[in-house]
Amino acid sequence: MNQHNDYTTLRLAHENGVARVTIDNAPVNVLDVALMTDLLRVLTALRDDHSVRVIAFESANPDFFIAHVDMSLVDQPDAFDLLAADIPDGVNVFQGLGEVLRRQPQVTIVKLAGLARGGGAEFVTAADMAFGAVGRAGLGQVEALMGIVPGGGGTQYLADRVGRNRALEVVLGAGLFDAATAERYGWLNRALPAEHLDAFVDGLARDIAALPDGVVEAAKHAIAPADLSEGYQREHDAWRGQFVRPATGGRAADPRRAGARCSDPRRRARPRGPVAQSAQVTETSVGWAWRSSALLDCVVSTWFLMVTDVEIPSTESVDEPGKRRRRHLPAASAPSSAPRGNTP
Amino acid sequence: MNQHNDYTTLRLAHENGVARVTIDNAPVNVLDVALMTDLLRVLTALRDDHSVRVIAFESANPDFFIAHVDMSLVDQPDAFDLLAADIPDGVNVFQGLGEVLRRQPQVTIVKLAGLARGGGAEFVTAADMAFGAVGRAGLGQVEALMGIVPGGGGTQYLADRVGRNRALEVVLGAGLFDAATAERYGWLNRALPAEHLDAFVDGLARDIAALPDGVVEAAKHAIAPADLSEGYQREHDAWRGQFVRPATGGRAADPRRAGARCSDPRRRARPRGPVAQSAQVTETSVGWAWRSSALLDCVVSTWFLMVTDVEIPSTESVDEPGKRRRRHLPAASAPSSAPRGNTP
Amino acid sequence: MNQHNDYTTLRLAHENGVARVTIDNAPVNVLDVALMTDLLRVLTALRDDHSVRVIAFESANPDFFIAHVDMSLVDQPDAFDLLAADIPDGVNVFQGLGEVLRRQPQVTIVKLAGLARGGGAEFVTAADMAFGAVGRAGLGQVEALMGIVPGGGGTQYLADRVGRNRALEVVLGAGLFDAATAERYGWLNRALPAEHLDAFVDGLARDIAALPDGVVEAAKHAIAPADLSEGYQREHDAWRGQFVRPATGGRAADPRRAGARCSDPRRRARPRGPVAQSAQVTETSVGWAWRSSALLDCVVSTWFLMVTDVEIPSTESVDEPGKRRRRHLPAASAPSSAPRGNTP
Repeated sequence: MNQHNDYTTLRLAHENGVARVTIDNAPVNVLDVALMTDLLRVLTALRDDHSVRVIAFESANPDFFIAHVDMSLVDQPDAFDLLAADIPDGVNVFQGLGEVLRRQPQVTIVKLAGLARGGGAEFVTAADMAFGAVGRAGLGQVEALMGIVPGGGGTQYLADRVGRNRALEVVLGAGLFDAATAERYGWLNRALPAEHLDAFVDGLARDIAALPDGVVEAAKHAIAPADLSEGYQREHDAWRGQFVRPATGGRAADPRRAGARCSDPRRRARPRGPVAQSAQVTETSVGWAWRSSALLDCVVSTWFLMVTDVEIPSTESVDEPGKRRRRHLPAASAPSSAPRGNTP
Repeated sequence: MNQHNDYTTLRLAHENGVARVTIDNAPVNVLDVALMTDLLRVLTALRDDHSVRVIAFESANPDFFIAHVDMSLVDQPDAFDLLAADIPDGVNVFQGLGEVLRRQPQVTIVKLAGLARGGGAEFVTAADMAFGAVGRAGLGQVEALMGIVPGGGGTQYLADRVGRNRALEVVLGAGLFDAATAERYGWLNRALPAEHLDAFVDGLARDIAALPDGVVEAAKHAIAPADLSEGYQREHDAWRGQFVRPATGGRAADPRRAGARCSDPRRRARPRGPVAQSAQVTETSVGWAWRSSALLDCVVSTWFLMVTDVEIPSTESVDEPGKRRRRHLPAASAPSSAPRGNTP
Repeated sequence: MNQHNDYTTLRLAHENGVARVTIDNAPVNVLDVALMTDLLRVLTALRDDHSVRVIAFESANPDFFIAHVDMSLVDQPDAFDLLAADIPDGVNVFQGLGEVLRRQPQVTIVKLAGLARGGGAEFVTAADMAFGAVGRAGLGQVEALMGIVPGGGGTQYLADRVGRNRALEVVLGAGLFDAATAERYGWLNRALPAEHLDAFVDGLARDIAALPDGVVEAAKHAIAPADLSEGYQREHDAWRGQFVRPATGGRAADPRRAGARCSDPRRRARPRGPVAQSAQVTETSVGWAWRSSALLDCVVSTWFLMVTDVEIPSTESVDEPGKRRRRHLPAASAPSSAPRGNTP
């Protein structure tokens, strides 16, 4: 097996047509600048590697696949300059990561043994397939608790995959979905007994990689990802709208209110679904991690909302007729040091 | 909690951002002119009430959410004049109620503890989310038994939500779907143990209403309802076609045949799925209600079909090029006293 | 009941508005020229028979609904001439069978008691509804093992019905899906206990056939099949691409590699899902059949791939602007004796 050691937040191994990407960004695989950069780099590097037919993503941390987005990302303008170069036109950088993943020529499979929330859940949903461990895996779009909606494609991936009614429940309920419920909703391909997850996903990846030449390309050509341009635009507008306080009567998140929310223990520790009750989830594994991470969210979200109470003029004229696609939407556009490098 | 007592067929209460609409149109919440009018009125009144973020619908009758449409509605032309003022263009009044619900700025949630059939099931499906009680809730598009298809958006909502194959089964099988099957089909967000339904839905409504400012609007903007214009037109044509007997070889429902059907006890009491067998459904609750209501259907449908054997010329030229949207399609257009007030 | 005996590979019976088509093409109902011809003939003959409202398909063989396509079909140019006359424009003959089925005015229902793979699974998915027997029924798009992708509409039907993520799993995993999993994925309407399958499907067919005049037509008009033109084109291009070896660096299936694959016993006998473990499946029924048929596949596929290593120029200019629909795409275009009769 070939090892590649030129990434800081993930490990890449390559064997018999399967590239195995192990996310390892301690302690909880936060989707920060380093991890986003590495994910974009590895996807870009593999894109033209015809010896690779399947890319399987897993985590070095059994409890977290990707805990959530590091919201401080939006305060690092340089990060966006670097990231913007690798993402498609017409999407913000978070949507861009999803779109790169959706357009990857290889088959992309997520092995979900732990939690994926926020931008981590979006990554899972953007992949071609995802399989989760019963009693261990959890998916949550928790952005609503921080006063925003998913802004990295999640609203569109979900609406397409689980339907509008369930997508609204996922996004507005902001709960944690265990693997069995996520399968029933169609969010995951399938929930598997935790002890079988590795064998199932690894076997599927190997089988696909062993198919005769051209089959993967043919299948991905025939079953093409939908064009989400309009949806990305709607999502981006909705998401960005939560960061700005227009001069004329707009609204902005109130950090005090958000801070107050975080001190609500019911809210803090509430997983929807049986993850917390599962006999396979112990206090020291997912249960603890979920709670401690929820506390982290509170810190992050309170901090984050405190720095967003700033008026940011829109840099786009999206209502301009005939101008349907834009180059590199600004990502968050939130802090006073908002990144502009990726805006035309 | 604020109470509003200016409705005759429902009760409205309002607390902490959640408007609770309790349908109370004894004995079985038939969707008649009064209830349709009240539903349109309450939705319209709440539309601009920014203190309300969630509208939760439930029933005062534990066995019925909305039993079915009162088919005598189509014989009351004045009713349509009043209703037509509140509904969007390009849809009939029944589709209009669904479209108003789909376009409501607040999050709309149905708590389904009993049965919803015909127009009642369409209302449930048009809402943003719906949760049903295992062993108690039932959904049925039973129109086919009366010689028509759902004409209030149901065919389109279903095709979008459960797929074409299952939508055809629902509409042509005309059976009653219990909560568990409806969840598996994707018709309901989720089936819940009956004793947990209240706590789950009320908690979800409260949580959503407590989100930071603007999140509900952002989520509903990002996850927008699909444009169903063409589907509404197809459905309306199909539905209306069953009421007319064109001069040249068309077909019309045969009241004698429908009457005969109603005397078939197998047909009359046939719920598809385990509702009738459920230990939680007693002879004196849903089981009885289903049968007695089925008898009522027979009376209504026989009567209804008897008055529809009348030639009604089409009032539209839908094939006219460039004329894609119409104002207020005629609703049923069936009886000799057919309402025309809402036709351009 | 009326019997029609002018088909060689199926039996047609007709009673009370239900046409029962029993596929009987021993030994395993291979979808060969004779069966394709008979299926197209029976669908065409029934199309204008207004006494028939429902067409129910079942198999005379309890273990196989349709085992797979007879790949020798592509080596019989005359077959295509005959078939092409009955299929719609813009699709290849395999897609054409599915499209005829999708456009059938009657309701089409598949009773799936055994296996349907390859073109057989495509037929099941193209029907309006399909119900499968738990522990007996199995669905598989196994084309990938032979170096191709489904080319008879399967990729499009699946993407529409089970979503892109699960469609990719079905097509690239090439596994066998038991009835319960197929229901969870939305591939089947429903999985039923094997002993109830007959009663359920027959009852549903009878009930639909007994509906008042015009209801079936109205429902099928309202819930119309999606226009899959673009998807058919993408699929056809992907599928045909696997048969050709363009002069400039294209790829073609390697028969030796495929032959080697077939000798892998793990691969040969691998059903995904619990079919093989099911107590209701004995070594002498489905289990045996699956394996013996897999061996047959190996023979067929090895032979098939051996004859496809031939350069076939494209006969279409699909990139020509303004030319969106084509008449009768060439089907496989593979062997040197490729059929051209159905190409404009």
